[in-house]
Amino acid sequence: MDAISVIRAKRDRAELTDDQIDWIIDAYTRGEVADEQMSSLAMATLLNGMNRKEIARWTAAMINSGERMDFSSLSRPTADKHSTGGVGDKITLPLAPLVAACGAAVPQLSGRGLGHTGGTLDKLEAIPGWRADLTNDEMLAILGDVGSVVCAAGAGLAPADKKLYALRDVTGTVESIPLIASSIMSKKIAEGTGSLVLDVKVGSGAFMKNLDDARELAATMVELGTDHGVRTTALLTNMATPLGLTAGNALEVRESVEVLAGGGPADVVELTLALAREMLDAAGLGDADPAKALADGSAMDHWRRMIQAQGGDPDAPLPVAREQHTVNASSSGILTTLDAYAIGLSAWRLGAGRARKEDPVQPAAGIELHAKPGDAVQAGQPLLTLHTDTPDRLPAALEALDGGVLIAPDAAPATPPPVVLERIA
Amino acid sequence: MDAISVIRAKRDRAELTDDQIDWIIDAYTRGEVADEQMSSLAMATLLNGMNRKEIARWTAAMINSGERMDFSSLSRPTADKHSTGGVGDKITLPLAPLVAACGAAVPQLSGRGLGHTGGTLDKLEAIPGWRADLTNDEMLAILGDVGSVVCAAGAGLAPADKKLYALRDVTGTVESIPLIASSIMSKKIAEGTGSLVLDVKVGSGAFMKNLDDARELAATMVELGTDHGVRTTALLTNMATPLGLTAGNALEVRESVEVLAGGGPADVVELTLALAREMLDAAGLGDADPAKALADGSAMDHWRRMIQAQGGDPDAPLPVAREQHTVNASSSGILTTLDAYAIGLSAWRLGAGRARKEDPVQPAAGIELHAKPGDAVQAGQPLLTLHTDTPDRLPAALEALDGGVLIAPDAAPATPPPVVLERIA
Repeated sequence: MDAISVIRAKRDRAELTDDQIDWIIDAYTRGEVADEQMSSLAMATLLNGMNRKEIARWTAAMINSGERMDFSSLSRPTADKHSTGGVGDKITLPLAPLVAACGAAVPQLSGRGLGHTGGTLDKLEAIPGWRADLTNDEMLAILGDVGSVVCAAGAGLAPADKKLYALRDVTGTVESIPLIASSIMSKKIAEGTGSLVLDVKVGSGAFMKNLDDARELAATMVELGTDHGVRTTALLTNMATPLGLTAGNALEVRESVEVLAGGGPADVVELTLALAREMLDAAGLGDADPAKALADGSAMDHWRRMIQAQGGDPDAPLPVAREQHTVNASSSGILTTLDAYAIGLSAWRLGAGRARKEDPVQPAAGIELHAKPGDAVQAGQPLLTLHTDTPDRLPAALEALDGGVLIAPDAAPATPPPVVLERIA
Repeated sequence: MDAISVIRAKRDRAELTDDQIDWIIDAYTRGEVADEQMSSLAMATLLNGMNRKEIARWTAAMINSGERMDFSSLSRPTADKHSTGGVGDKITLPLAPLVAACGAAVPQLSGRGLGHTGGTLDKLEAIPGWRADLTNDEMLAILGDVGSVVCAAGAGLAPADKKLYALRDVTGTVESIPLIASSIMSKKIAEGTGSLVLDVKVGSGAFMKNLDDARELAATMVELGTDHGVRTTALLTNMATPLGLTAGNALEVRESVEVLAGGGPADVVELTLALAREMLDAAGLGDADPAKALADGSAMDHWRRMIQAQGGDPDAPLPVAREQHTVNASSSGILTTLDAYAIGLSAWRLGAGRARKEDPVQPAAGIELHAKPGDAVQAGQPLLTLHTDTPDRLPAALEALDGGVLIAPDAAPATPPPVVLERIA
């Protein structure tokens, strides 16, 4: 077996054999197959695709590259959620303690942001004292005690995926359904959750720009999870415009706490509850009432305990940016477009995201929205506020908004489109 | 400018801009663009192609990555030949001194073999004392004195191509017409020859398996050469079966000397003379008579002087393999197939070629043919002899011949197909 023959097979549109897949994932993890060989194979895979059988084997090989976690000692059923990534997607923050408050154990292994989409760990790190790195024992202890934990995945979990993901990020080979599906599902299956709900984003701010691609990705992942004994469902959700009214780490923490306090933007509350119901159903806790847990303060109570268990102070003031710049409406009419990609890119340029894995983020940087698509606005009214510690970033951030904010003088006010577009099970 | 945006453009079937091409070749040569990024771009190029404008710019960028040689101080016109590589292709050996004997200067920068095709430098290194590495000054001196020189290209010539070629070799991205054409032509144009004849091989033993691909490759290269002021023509030649009766380094030197002595296999003589006439025409020496130079010993005289100028002893005995194994005809009839790829692979496994750049070759290893396609053979008659210093390689070498040697009991004897299939100018 050699790397070149595997690359050539995929290049020439052959189906990779089980042996070829097992061998190349193992040899790549061990460093025998070089990065330049794997990136060539990744590009061939992106352009020529993989069938379901190949994707299943590829996923299994990545799971087998590392350790598997075991939550069987917990008394509660485990339920996990994964989002494919969007702008203003802070849902994990209210969702994890909410579902824990309803009786499930929520082991939420999360990542950091890269490019225009944010990362859950970056958001929580805006809370003074909070730390993302836990040992497996610490994680299990918090899960047993509080019921939810959000932390970084350990190095032992699907190491092949860790290596391949970093490689894809710098070689233009991210946007491949087989590679995205196997990357997500290898980590979730190795993590050992009993059930999983996938939030597959669709729209300008997501990897999947259209419903067909999102459906294919969702169906591929649901099948992979089910085949490995994980009860898996997926919601396709709207990412044409940011979720809620904030994009940026500390800003999103603040908004999440508003939701846990019983308030917050309607779309964030709607999606949080929809995902909570999916997770509770999948975990066999369909009788629980997440709306009640939000209203009666038990979700907030779990949030505070979860943050404290990881060293954070839920009462500490969140960082505030040194510079705030408000953009006003240039005309009156209906705000028809507030493009998720434009807002995400602008927030990223303000310092909310990172260009390279090694870069730090600015916890306080980001964008606050004062209106949502469908709203009527008056000329001169504030539309959005940019937050940054480094004002020299403002011109580039404003440039990113060009064409992403549209006001139509003659349109009628509209109700916002639904957040949940489809369910795939 | 960044590598990912260039990779994405080609991945998404956009035409690369001049700036993108100039930047990525330069940044790759300087080490700013990583191997894993370039291999991803090479695979995207292999699968999505490049148009003529992109190929021309890519070639120019590779030329500009290094130095250009200058033969203007020579009193003779320069003429070079390049073969895309085949099995038993020893033509450079008799051709270079023959064309020099007819009045041209032949600066033949050559390579080593990789995979089943042989390399001219490996063949000449079978001659005791001969060395491939010359300084530019040594090369110019031999060209002025003898008229022909065969040596390794210096490190300063198209360094981008040197790096990219080594990368393509291990990443399954060799078989791309834009990448092959730009690789060959960047070296030949940087070398500074006044005219160039391309021997584009077609058939099982060549990179191009069919005439259409070979035509496209030849036309692309002729256009590139012409655009850079090099008089360039191409012959498409048959590589369905090996050239001559030998494949392997010392064996091919012996056969080349037979041709220079006025004998040798008809197909080798035919192709040597056809390429010599093309080179002499392109160099403005159309009145010269290469057949006469073979017959009167002046080509042989130039050969001896060329070998001696590079430290070789033209009278020293050539190495002979420790083990020789003859394969006999299993039945009587007409030998219809003697597959070039099968013979090349078998010779490679016997030790004539190398698997990795660092490997040594066995100078004496290879295959001697006792019949050619179209010949009538009797059961039990010797068909070919395998030569190797390492008899444990014989089983794998014999296995490579499976299906590559076919005898038809009822066929009529046939004249061999023509060696030269088409001319492209």
